[in-house]
Amino acid sequence: MARWEPNARGRLEEAALDLFAERGFDQTTVEDIATRAGLTKRTFFRYFADKREVLFGGGNQFQALFVDGLAAARATATPIEAVTISLEAVAPFFSDRHEHARRRHAVITANEELHERELVKLASVAAALAAALRERGIQEPTASVTAETAIAVFRTAFERWVAGDGDRELTELVRESLEALRSIAATA
Amino acid sequence: MARWEPNARGRLEEAALDLFAERGFDQTTVEDIATRAGLTKRTFFRYFADKREVLFGGGNQFQALFVDGLAAARATATPIEAVTISLEAVAPFFSDRHEHARRRHAVITANEELHERELVKLASVAAALAAALRERGIQEPTASVTAETAIAVFRTAFERWVAGDGDRELTELVRESLEALRSIAATA
Repeated sequence: MARWEPNARGRLEEAALDLFAERGFDQTTVEDIATRAGLTKRTFFRYFADKREVLFGGGNQFQALFVDGLAAARATATPIEAVTISLEAVAPFFSDRHEHARRRHAVITANEELHERELVKLASVAAALAAALRERGIQEPTASVTAETAIAVFRTAFERWVAGDGDRELTELVRESLEALRSIAATA
Repeated sequence: MARWEPNARGRLEEAALDLFAERGFDQTTVEDIATRAGLTKRTFFRYFADKREVLFGGGNQFQALFVDGLAAARATATPIEAVTISLEAVAPFFSDRHEHARRRHAVITANEELHERELVKLASVAAALAAALRERGIQEPTASVTAETAIAVFRTAFERWVAGDGDRELTELVRESLEALRSIAATA
């Protein structure tokens, strides 16, 4: 039986982010991460399939936040009302994670392969949101435009949030981006 | 001196798309492409740095279409008016390329690495558009939300266009996506 290690997942995540920032993602091994965390490789592999999963393991949960958030909108909600409810459900998830998000974002933008993976993750969330909107009876191209626009709003807000010092909540920045969307579309 | 070959670039593009579709991108070599086109590897490398560039070599021109299109908007144009003019400038570029675009899209969606590269290309265009909007005096987050939304509109229209039989022009589908954007934002 493996020995129970208090907060092993969190320690591995911290160690990985430290090393990715210090040495770069490509120059860091799973062994390095386990050693820095004071744990074994075997313990690492109980939590993550590989070092990339330390950065992207939350992807399914992230997508579920968007889709489950959408499910909470009433059936008669307009497309933009529905994705607004979805965005309002996602943003608070990050409320105490600014430092972690900032460090993760710095690692990802420094590495082309990781940056590509992040874009794929967001594109997958947009596709899942579009499918959920179609299930609500929303036609194309409205479903896809709404979903892609919601991800554009989220991404813009998220990038401003990680670039800042964390004083402002992501929720507030998401609302500003949504307001910007409303005002640009209103002047069309 | 190299022998002049009529339409060597076009023949290489055709041969590459044929082979990528038949064998897959990873299983096709530059030699295969040159042979299929009835040309030499040396001729291939006069036009393309590698086989990936056959698919992505037009990326700079694509980005320039968006940014130059934006420059044509009058200084007092609202953000959405400006990107509408940009999108109207980009779409006609594809008007006689449906078959080529359809085949290229099929190759790209079949290969994860190529799909990631395509997403990076679109993200770069969005960043360039946002920078151009800021230069026009548009503040953040409006500049980024507008640019990302414009790319979302383009991408949605483009995917519907390549999925169709080419009877409808890309320009028409872009207008439908823009109209969907206006109507979703109006109901916020």
